Amino acid sequence: MKIQKEIDFILAVDALKNVNRRNYNADDSRRENTAEHSWQIIILAQILYPYAKNKEDIDLLKVIRMLSIHDLVEIHAGDTFLFDEAGMKGKFEREKIAAKKIFGILDQSIADDFYNLWIEFEEEKTPDAIFACAIDRIMPFILNSHTSGKSWTEAGVTEKQVRNMLENAICRASDDMGDCFQTLMKKCFDENKFS
Amino acid sequence: MKIQKEIDFILAVDALKNVNRRNYNADDSRRENTAEHSWQIIILAQILYPYAKNKEDIDLLKVIRMLSIHDLVEIHAGDTFLFDEAGMKGKFEREKIAAKKIFGILDQSIADDFYNLWIEFEEEKTPDAIFACAIDRIMPFILNSHTSGKSWTEAGVTEKQVRNMLENAICRASDDMGDCFQTLMKKCFDENKFS
Repeated sequence: MKIQKEIDFILAVDALKNVNRRNYNADDSRRENTAEHSWQIIILAQILYPYAKNKEDIDLLKVIRMLSIHDLVEIHAGDTFLFDEAGMKGKFEREKIAAKKIFGILDQSIADDFYNLWIEFEEEKTPDAIFACAIDRIMPFILNSHTSGKSWTEAGVTEKQVRNMLENAICRASDDMGDCFQTLMKKCFDENKFS
Repeated sequence: MKIQKEIDFILAVDALKNVNRRNYNADDSRRENTAEHSWQIIILAQILYPYAKNKEDIDLLKVIRMLSIHDLVEIHAGDTFLFDEAGMKGKFEREKIAAKKIFGILDQSIADDFYNLWIEFEEEKTPDAIFACAIDRIMPFILNSHTSGKSWTEAGVTEKQVRNMLENAICRASDDMGDCFQTLMKKCFDENKFS
């Protein structure tokens, strides 16, 4: 069968449905998993694309493709909570090995294509990657602020930590996404839900 | 806040994570939900795109955008099992109402854009929609054949029904996807796992 490697790959990445993230779904019923998150940011990218800075330099197909595969490394390397400073150490090296392993199921050309998309996303330098990363960061922030910051409270995350990790990544991608971030931050922290 | 409608929309579509489908995940641990399915077919479209018939006529961005939103109607209309003949009656009319409701949260232009993508997908006439539909149909088929056809057995679905609903939709989109379908069908039904 000609497309055997593709079948093997799609069955291998099915495991992403079992990788749980820290944040909760909007109805607060359970934590979301990374497959669901990957889908939701693909929707968010489409509706926030009109608000991106320099959107004429952004290739929406490339952004969506990046978002669809950017967390596949978690199948082997696990999800690292953004605010887990110890866990963040060595993350990139662990994930590079995981990326080679998972993409390596496919033929070289598509494996390289995915690996390069993943590296570009991680490096956050190109307009596509800057916008994609901002989308990836603002989505759990929106869910967190909607669920009264439950996953932050559980992990003892402070306003300063949220700002350090998110503010610049979001604001540099879009003024309107930046305004949204500031409004929701104010709402969260002024309501004294967090310390 | 300028992007309030977009926030309302992304929180509303979060409910797709709670819409369960009939088929099981590859590890057979639980049924998949529609958010996970939507993500997985976006990956599958990228890796099977090289095998599509007339791929020079296919716009991969449009295919992926269709796949990302094609099941949002299930938030209001529920998931209808492909082999549930009674449930399939009136499905399109129910889903049109659901589509207007969910996309209507957004500004008119993007709401119309999503609605048109959804209609194009449902009508299965354009090269983009034919390929997207084949991807949407072959994914649960791959999972089903991998999990010994559990969801078919549970629902008493016959080989004839599987062929009626899937064969043409998959084969007309790609010869290699058609070969894959025939190989997996033979494996499933020759092993006498099904009646």
